[in-house]
Amino acid sequence: MAKEAAALTEETQYMIDKHVGKDTEKVESTGDAKEMRAVILAGFGGLNKLRVTKKAMPEPQDGEVKIRVKACGLNFLDLMVRQGTIDNPPKPPLVPGFECSGIVESVGEKTTGFEIGDRVMAFVNYNAWAEVVCTPVDFVYKMPEEMTFAEAAAFSLNFVAAYMMLFEVANLREGMSVLVHSAGGGVGQAVAQLCSTVPNVTVFGIASYFKHEAIKDSVTHLFDRNADYIQEVKKISPEGVDIMLDCLCGDNTGKGLTLLRPLGTYILYGASNLVTGETKSFFSFAKSWWQVEKVNPIKLYEENKVIAGFSLLNLLFKHGKCSLVKSVMDKLLCLYDQKKIKPVVDSLWALEEVKEAMQRIHDRGNIGKLILDVEKSPTPLMASDSTETSEAGEEEEEPEGDNDSKERMPFIH
Amino acid sequence: MAKEAAALTEETQYMIDKHVGKDTEKVESTGDAKEMRAVILAGFGGLNKLRVTKKAMPEPQDGEVKIRVKACGLNFLDLMVRQGTIDNPPKPPLVPGFECSGIVESVGEKTTGFEIGDRVMAFVNYNAWAEVVCTPVDFVYKMPEEMTFAEAAAFSLNFVAAYMMLFEVANLREGMSVLVHSAGGGVGQAVAQLCSTVPNVTVFGIASYFKHEAIKDSVTHLFDRNADYIQEVKKISPEGVDIMLDCLCGDNTGKGLTLLRPLGTYILYGASNLVTGETKSFFSFAKSWWQVEKVNPIKLYEENKVIAGFSLLNLLFKHGKCSLVKSVMDKLLCLYDQKKIKPVVDSLWALEEVKEAMQRIHDRGNIGKLILDVEKSPTPLMASDSTETSEAGEEEEEPEGDNDSKERMPFIH
Repeated sequence: MAKEAAALTEETQYMIDKHVGKDTEKVESTGDAKEMRAVILAGFGGLNKLRVTKKAMPEPQDGEVKIRVKACGLNFLDLMVRQGTIDNPPKPPLVPGFECSGIVESVGEKTTGFEIGDRVMAFVNYNAWAEVVCTPVDFVYKMPEEMTFAEAAAFSLNFVAAYMMLFEVANLREGMSVLVHSAGGGVGQAVAQLCSTVPNVTVFGIASYFKHEAIKDSVTHLFDRNADYIQEVKKISPEGVDIMLDCLCGDNTGKGLTLLRPLGTYILYGASNLVTGETKSFFSFAKSWWQVEKVNPIKLYEENKVIAGFSLLNLLFKHGKCSLVKSVMDKLLCLYDQKKIKPVVDSLWALEEVKEAMQRIHDRGNIGKLILDVEKSPTPLMASDSTETSEAGEEEEEPEGDNDSKERMPFIH
Repeated sequence: MAKEAAALTEETQYMIDKHVGKDTEKVESTGDAKEMRAVILAGFGGLNKLRVTKKAMPEPQDGEVKIRVKACGLNFLDLMVRQGTIDNPPKPPLVPGFECSGIVESVGEKTTGFEIGDRVMAFVNYNAWAEVVCTPVDFVYKMPEEMTFAEAAAFSLNFVAAYMMLFEVANLREGMSVLVHSAGGGVGQAVAQLCSTVPNVTVFGIASYFKHEAIKDSVTHLFDRNADYIQEVKKISPEGVDIMLDCLCGDNTGKGLTLLRPLGTYILYGASNLVTGETKSFFSFAKSWWQVEKVNPIKLYEENKVIAGFSLLNLLFKHGKCSLVKSVMDKLLCLYDQKKIKPVVDSLWALEEVKEAMQRIHDRGNIGKLILDVEKSPTPLMASDSTETSEAGEEEEEPEGDNDSKERMPFIH
């Protein structure tokens, strides 16, 4: 394990010592306690802004279900939330997290379709990284029997996003080609699997070299993220690519557009480069965010190209497309039942290990999805006190920001 | 008829007197003459740059067919060509026109799939407005038996463009909504008909008020082009529109994007406002052309929107997509055979009447397609001489540039 990770573990152990411990036991044993453990983001910034603490337990409102959370998904977007580099971020302190799986513990008034004991996965507009979550039924889906809670937490956001980009925004059909950045990540693996459900689709994957052995069978061609992938792809497919999925943004976007075939679709669905960029300053991030090259519609006309943006969370929580997402989820669960797709879980982490988990995703160390396993005990096991001591806003020396890809051992899988 | 049109007719008559006449008869009677009549654009500018003259007859090269032209399509794009407001225009003098129908008169070496006597429609990269056209077989399609030559010339560009925008670029499906500008034009009418082949599609059409009676049955809701259509559409569909087809460009584009639903597709496929704008100067056109608002990809991401450009001619002649277009044409001819679609012909014009035809399309006077009927005699019939007198580059007072929509009688239909 890298030196930074070792240092982090020590810090994490300290956090665990201070924050959780017996209360965890209590909550888990009584079930009806009025408090719960949750990950809190005290303010925007580095890893030190995160802690695990106790919070009042929410109760379901009309049309909501209350979920006893078993597993939560960790996404690159959570790093952007932590840094405040998203559009209109809510005011901290807040509980991060947009997806979870668990068991329905109670239902609100006028809530139909779910019963106590149902195994479910859900989208949440923040607040997922907690022992208990309440969310409207519109965002809740029943889990297939054979799906584990970790799989479910790895499933919803990545597969729904991948499916909608390929089949709703673009129109993936037989014989087309798809290029996906971060091919080893949660969305990347979902894209690769969904492409394999359509005959004769060529997938160009871009990933750190150390992941190639692990993911080489999931894509047709694999390129190192430090290579000149534009030239490499052109050698194989001189006419370019039909669908390009870009979660990096920045300089990359303009370059990538040149690789798009006529009638091809370029989809921007994230901006992870802003998080892992060379600079650490928030204002530098913000600057590069807005410096993304604008697109001239006339150029699109001359070149017969399509450019699209896709944000699943905005679609769900701002644009009211939950019934469309539900229909997509139904199709995905069919594919899961037919064993055509299966979420790839990279590793499981205790809530108290959220910093290490974030460091791993920041370093692009993961293959597939990182999961916060609410019932997992942190690896260094010595929990005795729940007093809050860490100060929001304090600055610590942190390993994050190092842009080299490091290979780490997956912790549990 | 409006005063300007009357003036034009007089000028046209003069042109006919000077340019054609007996030669027309000669070409038509002998068939194997080495010269042919063609519309020539002497230089970029106003209507006075156009004339009908004799030109050496082309012979088919390898893989080409030689077509005895019966009818040609006139498109808004031809007005942009005339003004030189397109990307990389060829150097005049040139023969305008991108589509025609006719009879195969001979075939080149290595030309397969067509025989002498075949009734065909074809795309041409310029040179369509002539008695004889040679073009590679990739751009030639056999006409259904019951289709007239005028229908065929009205069919190819408009229906292929409409189909590809709705089904290749966007992904029109049951229950969606489509907004189309210039709903009374050739593409607009093709869009409306194709939308009616999909269940439960709502079509919002925008057209000059005087066309409403004629086209009201082709769309679901019709708005006057001078009305605040954004507000009108929002009243009916507060959540916006799924697919927007914009051939106007300019200020309109930014306004239109606000009406697009999340996951909706905005397609820019022309820039007719640049031709009919308040100004007549070429440089003003060029300025507004480049002043089109650029699109921030981040905004597309936040709003889950798709923006696309579509140029069928670039697709065919620059991007090598003729086999895709051929497959689209096959689907369209099926729909035609099933009587689900039928090109709308606005009016037929002799080659010598090209100025009046252009004025009519400029004034947005047409409902459906304007056709140059090669065998038609000009309405004022007194042709006696073929001497060339008009000077390229000379400036005349012209009616064009008046932006008011005028109602004119369709000349022949």
